Amino acid sequence: MAQLDTALAKIDANLDAALKRLFALVAIPSISTDPAYAEACQKAAEWLRDELQGLGFEASVRPTQGRPMVVGKAKAGREDVPHVLFYGHYDVQPPDPLDLWQTPPFAARLAAAATGRQIVGRGTSDDKGQLMTFVEACRALKETGSLPCDVTILFEGEEETGSPSLPAFLQANKAELKADIALVCDTNMWDRATPAITTMLRGLVLEEVVIKAANRDLHSGMFGGAAVNPIHVLAKIIADLRDADGRITLPGFYDGVAELPPEIAAQWRDLKFDGSQFLKDVGLSVPAGEKGRSVLEMIWARPTFDVNGIIGGYTGKGSKTVLPAEASAKFSFRLVGAQDPEKIAASFRAFVKAHLPADCQAEFIAHGASGALQLPFDSAPLACARTALSDEWGKDAALIGSGGSIPIVGAFKRDLGMESLMIGFALEDDRIHSPNEKYELSSFHKGARSWARILTALAEG
Amino acid sequence: MAQLDTALAKIDANLDAALKRLFALVAIPSISTDPAYAEACQKAAEWLRDELQGLGFEASVRPTQGRPMVVGKAKAGREDVPHVLFYGHYDVQPPDPLDLWQTPPFAARLAAAATGRQIVGRGTSDDKGQLMTFVEACRALKETGSLPCDVTILFEGEEETGSPSLPAFLQANKAELKADIALVCDTNMWDRATPAITTMLRGLVLEEVVIKAANRDLHSGMFGGAAVNPIHVLAKIIADLRDADGRITLPGFYDGVAELPPEIAAQWRDLKFDGSQFLKDVGLSVPAGEKGRSVLEMIWARPTFDVNGIIGGYTGKGSKTVLPAEASAKFSFRLVGAQDPEKIAASFRAFVKAHLPADCQAEFIAHGASGALQLPFDSAPLACARTALSDEWGKDAALIGSGGSIPIVGAFKRDLGMESLMIGFALEDDRIHSPNEKYELSSFHKGARSWARILTALAEG
Repeated sequence: MAQLDTALAKIDANLDAALKRLFALVAIPSISTDPAYAEACQKAAEWLRDELQGLGFEASVRPTQGRPMVVGKAKAGREDVPHVLFYGHYDVQPPDPLDLWQTPPFAARLAAAATGRQIVGRGTSDDKGQLMTFVEACRALKETGSLPCDVTILFEGEEETGSPSLPAFLQANKAELKADIALVCDTNMWDRATPAITTMLRGLVLEEVVIKAANRDLHSGMFGGAAVNPIHVLAKIIADLRDADGRITLPGFYDGVAELPPEIAAQWRDLKFDGSQFLKDVGLSVPAGEKGRSVLEMIWARPTFDVNGIIGGYTGKGSKTVLPAEASAKFSFRLVGAQDPEKIAASFRAFVKAHLPADCQAEFIAHGASGALQLPFDSAPLACARTALSDEWGKDAALIGSGGSIPIVGAFKRDLGMESLMIGFALEDDRIHSPNEKYELSSFHKGARSWARILTALAEG
Repeated sequence: MAQLDTALAKIDANLDAALKRLFALVAIPSISTDPAYAEACQKAAEWLRDELQGLGFEASVRPTQGRPMVVGKAKAGREDVPHVLFYGHYDVQPPDPLDLWQTPPFAARLAAAATGRQIVGRGTSDDKGQLMTFVEACRALKETGSLPCDVTILFEGEEETGSPSLPAFLQANKAELKADIALVCDTNMWDRATPAITTMLRGLVLEEVVIKAANRDLHSGMFGGAAVNPIHVLAKIIADLRDADGRITLPGFYDGVAELPPEIAAQWRDLKFDGSQFLKDVGLSVPAGEKGRSVLEMIWARPTFDVNGIIGGYTGKGSKTVLPAEASAKFSFRLVGAQDPEKIAASFRAFVKAHLPADCQAEFIAHGASGALQLPFDSAPLACARTALSDEWGKDAALIGSGGSIPIVGAFKRDLGMESLMIGFALEDDRIHSPNEKYELSSFHKGARSWARILTALAEG
């Protein structure tokens, strides 16, 4: 324990210097989507490599087809400790619209706010400020002794453009990058006072269906009443996929969907999530999912079915008396728990085929199928990290879900067989991707302290 | 009867001269859609005026905003006879693609075919050949005595472009054009041997619906499961509008829908319509309408519901995890009998509103509502015309329906309070609007004889 206390004191004492370093990184406009900033991306990668080398990491910039990766490796002071892979990204979104920024986006500054001081600038929250919390934790630990775990660091430069080079890079460097667990720092706290670990990400099955009937568009006066209408066939399929209670009717769909453990359910209730406000913000008032489920359950813990697009027949202005030869829709299913994406895709196709009336054919186009990611609630690293976070923030860390997907976590699981702890200190109101992006000074400061605690706790097991 | 026999003999004797006149009319390229042929349209109108004047009609060319009308009037030889309004159109479709014509489109000619001689040329069937059958009948009656009815003739020059000037012209000339009954010559025989009178035209209610939910497009990962999806709402409305037997579930929808009189039902069965072939031609095999109805009933005598177009969400290539803020569809209902279009539109809107879940709104855009047109099966002029046609063709005239609409008939009913007898001698294989359009010589010859009989029969009552 002695080293941790000294390291935490070091983080406190060196906060101004740490801020200066973050400001220097923010000053490099590493916008990944714009080729004009490719050199800036290279420069940011080199800056990070130099920082890591300064901390005694074996670090290098690794070229890819796009923006480079940075990989750094450092051993713990002793053997038989866990090996962690830390992930963050140094690329940022373009700062446009520039005229809405109160100060230049790449000149980071401290600003006073009612809730405390904030670091303002592009990338302060997404994700330069977040990844530097980990670097500063490593620095303090190094300066007060040695790292408690073996640490590999992976900084990516294409997260904002969909990580095109990442899968190949993981495949090519499996042995080097594989660790006991990944630490992914690109997520939010639950709120200003409550740290959070994201342990559940929903999976996704995407299926496009084209229903075909007559061999050409027909006149609805001449054929209407006698010829089958593929829009009706599609509508019936969509309507029949859900029952009156909002449950999805695909056979076997709920296989692998478990109820939340009572402890987690209780914890979620304690979060006092305001589902009404969540819906009100987008003009809605009534949760539209399964009866008897809370909004949080609906978006984190329950599978869904949605049509993301539909088209058929005449869609211009006015009317046209046409019976279209075909109609199509894009179906998506969000998965949770142990739902099997392949089985669900197959069950969906069988469901559609069983719904086809005479003279209709269905064509299917798969747009991807991936299972949900769920860190077991009884995982030991999760317990360690949770305690460490709770100690730092004086409040139990929330174990939360995410309705969407975070591709890097799926890639770590699929390509490296590695679970991820998603821990971040950003806040909902950080204005990421928008003008005047900010990161709370407390997120930066206590974030670094949190990682020092987490690495120590993981080593102690 | 004596005059009719003489008149029929006259038509037979003068067939060659009648053909020459038709060829002269066909030679005028009165293409209404192309402004380059405006002068040709004017010329065709003047040619027709001169013809009518030559027969003793008081005839004139009437300018409109577009192509001119021709109106001709002639009195019968005695008082207290019916007054008929005959309608045909002198404008034609463009002849493109020209290279598919075996001979120049406006140089009409007689050609031999297995089924008899044919008149080939643009407009021979649609509608110059048809309207000249009536003119030739009037000529023969005039030359052998006098017209049995008071006759007003209306030739239009914009039928192929949707009759834009017609409604205003009818409004402005109500008193002059109003007759006891309209004779509309722009339809087909049932088959080569069977004359037909079209007595039923379906009506049409067109309603577009936009379903709106959230105040913006949402991310389906973040909101999926909790936020209502307007595509699903629309699909449920479409699916619920029809029951398992193919009947439309709108309250009151079938009010005013009568079963066919047994005599008509029997006559339709005798037509031996090949519903299977009708569907097979467009790649279908099973009638998709109400259970227990024949294909002919489905397209002529039963009301329908169809969606003519639907759109919502992402419809490009690939996938997008979007929950759209809105989705829309174009609904149409074909009406029969005494169904009230206004009531059905209102019932539909109420149905949609009753189907809206919380947080959804519906916007409606009306694209028109018109009732079905049905000549009473016991109408006296219908009986006269039917007998006359049967006498000429040696086969009972079929009383048929049409699934689509013929705007002129609706306009006569609405603006002039006048029923129409739709009688034409075209055949399904006449290639109207296509290269090598033809009209059977027998259609032209016996068509003229048919009108002489019909006018005589109408006068005799």
